[in-house]
Amino acid sequence: MIFYDCPTAPNPRRARMFIAEKGLEIETREISMIKGEQLSPAFLKVNPLGTIPVLVTEAGNILTENVAIAAYLEERHPEPPLLGRDAEERGMVFNWNAIVEQQGGQPIAEAFRNSHPAMKDRAITGPEDFEQIPALAERAFHRIDLFFDLMERRLSESEYLAGDRFTLPDITAFVMIEFARVVRRRIPEGNTATLRWHSAVKARPSAAA
Amino acid sequence: MIFYDCPTAPNPRRARMFIAEKGLEIETREISMIKGEQLSPAFLKVNPLGTIPVLVTEAGNILTENVAIAAYLEERHPEPPLLGRDAEERGMVFNWNAIVEQQGGQPIAEAFRNSHPAMKDRAITGPEDFEQIPALAERAFHRIDLFFDLMERRLSESEYLAGDRFTLPDITAFVMIEFARVVRRRIPEGNTATLRWHSAVKARPSAAA
Repeated sequence: MIFYDCPTAPNPRRARMFIAEKGLEIETREISMIKGEQLSPAFLKVNPLGTIPVLVTEAGNILTENVAIAAYLEERHPEPPLLGRDAEERGMVFNWNAIVEQQGGQPIAEAFRNSHPAMKDRAITGPEDFEQIPALAERAFHRIDLFFDLMERRLSESEYLAGDRFTLPDITAFVMIEFARVVRRRIPEGNTATLRWHSAVKARPSAAA
Repeated sequence: MIFYDCPTAPNPRRARMFIAEKGLEIETREISMIKGEQLSPAFLKVNPLGTIPVLVTEAGNILTENVAIAAYLEERHPEPPLLGRDAEERGMVFNWNAIVEQQGGQPIAEAFRNSHPAMKDRAITGPEDFEQIPALAERAFHRIDLFFDLMERRLSESEYLAGDRFTLPDITAFVMIEFARVVRRRIPEGNTATLRWHSAVKARPSAAA
């Protein structure tokens, strides 16, 4: 296996954290997004989408999506289980992972890519340039507020997102919320359940991966 | 189990098609999006996100995301396998499902919700209203073109999206492409690999579910 990583971006961090939770050592190659290496001809041969992370599997398949990297590694290395121990838990893991991606990850990325000067003409990942849409950034900032409300409601009724154990959606939410700092959004001070959860996740060794 | 369905929307159709492929009979309740029933107080008690489909599991968990409904049902009813038979296939299934959702499903939904008169102030799903963003619709239409290019490249090298067998990402892509008709986008005539794949999927009994 080969893992293509980038230390400055949130999506590779999600994969790194998952790999760390599994206790795996995978041959790693760093791609600098600051230098734009994800759009170099050499890297586009690996992943034509021009995104990081990438996991090249044992069979040579190219996995470019975090949920796929997690599903593949979970099959090969079931312990500790991060995608659910039975059908009920598995359903909740994938449900909350998708909710966090859509209600949190998407607006955080939209806010960043459509408002940050460093992302000018880079509003969408990949080889083609896309202009920023200021109205989309504005909408995204409002949706980030709604996402923090949603997290607080869920974490007031459940210790972790999928239930009483740490699983994949906790990685997804933790990394996206940490990344939201680039657009100056943090967990609101009054959201005590979310702050309790955030401290618990931050204390895991994988949070430093 | 209880399945909340809506005959006029693409996301419930994805779940219906998955359930049909598994040969399952699940107690079903229809929610009319045309009447706005997905935002009624009664339905928001079931799913506060105000979206359909919903699968209420045997244990009473609420699954609102297609990928979670698929993961839950696959665990309980493994045959026929639609999420991969081994780690390699599983990785490819989740990878292509996520790619189709992000590169296809997202722009198709954005184009529809940000341009169609019926979606005025409904640019985002859920209880809160959001204004349409015309520039986002325009960007989405261009991304739909890129998605058809991506599908054609993939289906020129692979019979189905995840490999040589029909799996979850084929359901996702088929339903989203059928739905793209509402914004007047179809598989381009010259995309022979995609048209071959589309005919094969359309011939399955589940395509009429």
